[in-house]
Amino acid sequence: MKDKIKRNVIVGQSGGPTAAINSSLAGVYRTAIDRGYNRVFGMLHGVQGLLEGRYIDLSEHIKTGLDQELLKRTPSAYLGSCRYKLPGINEDKAVYEKIFEILDDLQVDCFIYIGGNDSMDTIKKLSDYAIVTGSEIRFVGCPKTIDNDLALTDHTPGYGSAAKYIGTSVKEVIRDGWSLETAKGQILVMEIMGRNAGWLTGASALAKGEDCDGPDAIYLPELDFDPDAFVEKCRQLLKKKRSVFVAVSEGIHLADGTYISEMGNSASYIDAFGHKQLTGTARYLCNLLSHEIGCKTRAIELSTLQRAASHCASRVDILEAFEVGGAAMKAADEGETGKMVVIVRTSDDPYQASTEVKDVHRIANDERTVPREWISEDGTYVTNEFVNYVRPLIQGDVAPIMVDGIPRHLYVPGYQDLL
Amino acid sequence: MKDKIKRNVIVGQSGGPTAAINSSLAGVYRTAIDRGYNRVFGMLHGVQGLLEGRYIDLSEHIKTGLDQELLKRTPSAYLGSCRYKLPGINEDKAVYEKIFEILDDLQVDCFIYIGGNDSMDTIKKLSDYAIVTGSEIRFVGCPKTIDNDLALTDHTPGYGSAAKYIGTSVKEVIRDGWSLETAKGQILVMEIMGRNAGWLTGASALAKGEDCDGPDAIYLPELDFDPDAFVEKCRQLLKKKRSVFVAVSEGIHLADGTYISEMGNSASYIDAFGHKQLTGTARYLCNLLSHEIGCKTRAIELSTLQRAASHCASRVDILEAFEVGGAAMKAADEGETGKMVVIVRTSDDPYQASTEVKDVHRIANDERTVPREWISEDGTYVTNEFVNYVRPLIQGDVAPIMVDGIPRHLYVPGYQDLL
Repeated sequence: MKDKIKRNVIVGQSGGPTAAINSSLAGVYRTAIDRGYNRVFGMLHGVQGLLEGRYIDLSEHIKTGLDQELLKRTPSAYLGSCRYKLPGINEDKAVYEKIFEILDDLQVDCFIYIGGNDSMDTIKKLSDYAIVTGSEIRFVGCPKTIDNDLALTDHTPGYGSAAKYIGTSVKEVIRDGWSLETAKGQILVMEIMGRNAGWLTGASALAKGEDCDGPDAIYLPELDFDPDAFVEKCRQLLKKKRSVFVAVSEGIHLADGTYISEMGNSASYIDAFGHKQLTGTARYLCNLLSHEIGCKTRAIELSTLQRAASHCASRVDILEAFEVGGAAMKAADEGETGKMVVIVRTSDDPYQASTEVKDVHRIANDERTVPREWISEDGTYVTNEFVNYVRPLIQGDVAPIMVDGIPRHLYVPGYQDLL
Repeated sequence: MKDKIKRNVIVGQSGGPTAAINSSLAGVYRTAIDRGYNRVFGMLHGVQGLLEGRYIDLSEHIKTGLDQELLKRTPSAYLGSCRYKLPGINEDKAVYEKIFEILDDLQVDCFIYIGGNDSMDTIKKLSDYAIVTGSEIRFVGCPKTIDNDLALTDHTPGYGSAAKYIGTSVKEVIRDGWSLETAKGQILVMEIMGRNAGWLTGASALAKGEDCDGPDAIYLPELDFDPDAFVEKCRQLLKKKRSVFVAVSEGIHLADGTYISEMGNSASYIDAFGHKQLTGTARYLCNLLSHEIGCKTRAIELSTLQRAASHCASRVDILEAFEVGGAAMKAADEGETGKMVVIVRTSDDPYQASTEVKDVHRIANDERTVPREWISEDGTYVTNEFVNYVRPLIQGDVAPIMVDGIPRHLYVPGYQDLL
């Protein structure tokens, strides 16, 4: 590689966005420029957009150091994202030929994809195809997901900021719940993202401290959910305090696999990966509690804010995301392919971490869930080990760059027209 | 008054909490101490708690300057709130006799009540009773409400922080909405508080700037809502962009007064167990859009976070709330009674404001709504005048005091046991 003239890099974003995914993009861009690459292209809406010839030249948009700082503080996917599932090489060779034709036209040496499990599947397939066909393009994955469900890495960029927002918001909602008395008491049920993994829902325990009781119960999707036991638990809690707060994962389900959200909403929608679109778990449980206990309830969904709240991002997370983007670019530059960058925690206290690269074949489509021993024995809370694991990831703040009282973001002018 | 020895003050909080109500409490406390009062009592859960003899001595809880700073940054009502409506003097004289007996026992000279319209009604009645019975206790109201619907004051403490949180969150949710493409497009519907006044929903327009389109439509409760016109508007918007964002007030209603939220509740949303499924305004409208247009939708409720998000408070708001609390205490100390402090805007640009006191008889139970001329002619947006009005109120930040990565709040130890 050393003797070759460095040409261009292409980078894309895929899957559900986070508050940190653009910091990784900034890291890829910065390291690519620092290492002497000529141009850095950004796929619009990932591989799906690339296949339609949609991309931009990032140096036309990230012109100054201030632009880089804005990008690190911009939520959602700056380049747009996609949920495109690459077919198997044997299923549709034409797709691969088309992608490599575009990459060759763009004189791309390195292809960096920032995403979760599905994105790592894309890196795996494209790097395999490159090896089979003798292409010298390197493919490296950069981990990203608020769900924190990627294997082999200690945690994923994006998780820390979502956890910080959840811990902060849960504390504020609990505090609000104290204020107004109701004769029969009230139960607040907050629904938190995480279809199969309870990392985000468990982060609600971060609200607990000297000045806040934290959630009174936490239900993760790792365990089967028993509505009768849930109602009984709430009934007991209401005897002790007038405002009860319960955090539930959107993915909680009965022992037979039926999602609680499905019980309230029979019309379910299936996405391209066969994932069911879930809605209304908290609302369903509130209706159940009202009916069974007769108390006041309030269903709260953090919705997309939990992945988009850059205004409450974790400094550790945003800086790690930047580093991980740079490490992915560095690995590709140094000839690695079919790899994903992972974060290795070298010390808990004081927290220290570094990056490594691992074979993407070991990662793809392998969901990491909360270990059973980090969930309390009765299944209604997380353990101290869980909190000790997540606490370092929410440290420090990233001051938004405020303009007219509102955080400023970096954007692609005319972005909506490019769609 | 000058010759009398200053004795004690009592302060209470009432109505829906805000991110700024405790800053007003800190202002009352600070000024009471500065002006030489002996003790400052805090009613727990307002007049309702006072009637049950529940109060604390604030100097046992606010011991240091740091405690005062924490209190200014603590959301919800530090003392607890209530929605207690004082009966008319002729209806139930015994209640008044009991309140004044307690106040006399506590050797109270000044009674400060932080709240909205109902609280000012309480100040009016208690000050009237004092005058009639020859009591020398002074009663002064301190305005507070995220709804911004109090008459005579330019705006109310609490509104600016809620507006800042809404503007910030709307921008982040819109940005998140860009990221994922869907073939038929998607419509995001956010439900915002304000049953009769659209001040908060209109604040969603703060998201608009060079880097964000802002909401595509805004529906305030000041105008009748036409579901057919709404669907048609959304249909047209979807032709122009793939991710449409609409802000609606929780209080939007048909021309006959029927709330949209009621339409969701009365519809046949019955689950397998015969439980009626309650739906909010946004959820109802999303179901309507899915049915009529067939696009993907997402209902988002900011819920209690919009009044409790101290982590995103406005500096102008928190400082004004503190000043207004101090001004209420000053007025009572100087012999005023039956008054409320109001904020007078003396200049728009640069923004300048000061406080005055006004007769509470002119204020109580008079709801101030968004003027028709600040709503666009077609009724689907707010005008520049609206944005120019609210913009100064969201300026500046109040850094939370972070402990272990989460904002720290001041609290009354054993608070839940005191209930």
